[in-house]
Amino acid sequence: MDFPAVSPPDATVAAAARARQDRLTKPTGSLGRLEDLSVWVASCQGYCPPQQFERVRIVVFAGDHGVTRARVSAYPPQVTAQMVTNIDRGGAAINALAAVAGAGVRVVDMAVDAEFDAETSGAISAYKVRRGSGDIAHEDALTPQQAFAAVDAGRRIADDEVDAGADLLIPGDMGIGNTTVATALVASLTGAEPVEAVGYGTGIDDAGWARKTAAVRDALFRSRSQRSDPLGLLRCCGGADLAALAGFCAQAAVRRTPVLLDGLASTAAALVADRLAPGARAWWQVGHRSPEPAHALACAALGLEPILDLRMRLGEGSGAAVALPMLRAAVATLASMSTFAEAGVSGPADQADQ
Amino acid sequence: MDFPAVSPPDATVAAAARARQDRLTKPTGSLGRLEDLSVWVASCQGYCPPQQFERVRIVVFAGDHGVTRARVSAYPPQVTAQMVTNIDRGGAAINALAAVAGAGVRVVDMAVDAEFDAETSGAISAYKVRRGSGDIAHEDALTPQQAFAAVDAGRRIADDEVDAGADLLIPGDMGIGNTTVATALVASLTGAEPVEAVGYGTGIDDAGWARKTAAVRDALFRSRSQRSDPLGLLRCCGGADLAALAGFCAQAAVRRTPVLLDGLASTAAALVADRLAPGARAWWQVGHRSPEPAHALACAALGLEPILDLRMRLGEGSGAAVALPMLRAAVATLASMSTFAEAGVSGPADQADQ
Repeated sequence: MDFPAVSPPDATVAAAARARQDRLTKPTGSLGRLEDLSVWVASCQGYCPPQQFERVRIVVFAGDHGVTRARVSAYPPQVTAQMVTNIDRGGAAINALAAVAGAGVRVVDMAVDAEFDAETSGAISAYKVRRGSGDIAHEDALTPQQAFAAVDAGRRIADDEVDAGADLLIPGDMGIGNTTVATALVASLTGAEPVEAVGYGTGIDDAGWARKTAAVRDALFRSRSQRSDPLGLLRCCGGADLAALAGFCAQAAVRRTPVLLDGLASTAAALVADRLAPGARAWWQVGHRSPEPAHALACAALGLEPILDLRMRLGEGSGAAVALPMLRAAVATLASMSTFAEAGVSGPADQADQ
Repeated sequence: MDFPAVSPPDATVAAAARARQDRLTKPTGSLGRLEDLSVWVASCQGYCPPQQFERVRIVVFAGDHGVTRARVSAYPPQVTAQMVTNIDRGGAAINALAAVAGAGVRVVDMAVDAEFDAETSGAISAYKVRRGSGDIAHEDALTPQQAFAAVDAGRRIADDEVDAGADLLIPGDMGIGNTTVATALVASLTGAEPVEAVGYGTGIDDAGWARKTAAVRDALFRSRSQRSDPLGLLRCCGGADLAALAGFCAQAAVRRTPVLLDGLASTAAALVADRLAPGARAWWQVGHRSPEPAHALACAALGLEPILDLRMRLGEGSGAAVALPMLRAAVATLASMSTFAEAGVSGPADQADQ
């Protein structure tokens, strides 16, 4: 799986954006994180001031996971298919949050353990690789061909979206058991112990946490030889949804399109994607801090600081959707504010002269 | 200055909203802070699901402060008037952030030490109480009549906005030196020592911080007898802008209209307002955490936790404007998401049965 080299966002534009922030009518640095985000957006777009986002696309990658047989989730596996239908019909959290933030939503069935009615939902499964996945505690999640096909699907979906005019991409996830698989990927790539990395997902009890930790430990043991092979790792202890997410995040960077990551699933996939396409991380921000310990590990490994912390733990891309207005606000400052010179406003007094 | 009794938001609606959150298609509690905010908005509006905000109004109260003669700010006092003009023309941060968040902006000159051109900006000064204020380290900021007039102006402005259909109010501030005055108010009402409460404002140096702390100390000494008299406190160590902010926040609560507070100036005024109209705090949230220590003291005293922390330190209502989309997102979840029953989605498996 070869991705072309990823070139970074435009450093010259970044410098111009930083300089413009310092000329806007407010104390230097007083917009805090918004200033950094505005500089990042400008450097990704390649011009300053940046343009407001006009076509933000959220793509939710869905899949089931064999590891749920070890009872690692509070929800039964059939919820994955039910929620895919719910998202497709517009009733899920991601639909409500995307609508209010001005983003479009698309759900893609990569490996849901169900068949969707082709009449009403046929397009959902156009990229489907298989039903479910192997239980990563005991067997590979995917065959090598399936892993390749899933990453390639994510790549093609990113291409489709960018070709259709997307100027910001948000990867989302839906899949009972996916935090277990994502945690295994993060632990493998960061060297963290399972007990450091495993969280409570959608709300398991302590016994469920112990089962989840054991599954991650076994998956790590099985995948030791794959740590330096991102595609092998996705095959061994990933899944088709995680693999597609990785391909999606990597290809967005190749296409010089900024990405707002969400919680554990998308950030774990992004950590793999930065191995598939080194340097891709420069095109990403993380929208919301997850309470999952593995999310913090992945963010630290990527050098990314989440924008929000509203104690959300939902997935679907929801945390990124809620953070989207922060990027819009950042763009608005560079695009709409007056400079000191334009407004005839005095700068700071020279304190030494007072 | 008598405000009518403030009745709390509707507890029955709050319970209905909480129950509805638990029926929506997502793990219980997984929307984190958004769930709490959605319940609050519903209880303020008095119905569940709540309606999306249609007329959000930001009112920026401007004034100059005599205490700037002690060189407590990095900016010269004439910046207040320049920035009022900038806001009126739409070039300030609050204009950019309000536009992208879907809010209207109005700036009110309560005590700017300048005269605005009546032709182009006459409406700005319709409520003006005086030019500047007394240096609170040495003299009262206002006369008793001015303090009353300023609180009353804030009250009338809140009435005007609510009568014109505002369904959410955001108080903003513009005034060189206003963090010094606001800090004195907070320290007086919380009993904090000046060194605990004084921050760096728009970016003073250490010598400026020491001057600012001395001014706050002197103001506290002067105002000791006014701690239980909110109007006396505003007269003694406040200012017409802070007094109007207090009247505005109190009257919004009287009118059962939710308020999104911003940084130190509006939250300090709100702390006074909750003394003017006990119980008003139930109608407020704080949009953004300020780095000013007095802001944390005021939030703690009001029992309010800021929604965002993006390291902003700008004032003008900017942090609240950036937090506004969080309230919109919260409303959207209650208003637009499907319930488990509507979507045919299974709830959590009973782990004891597995």
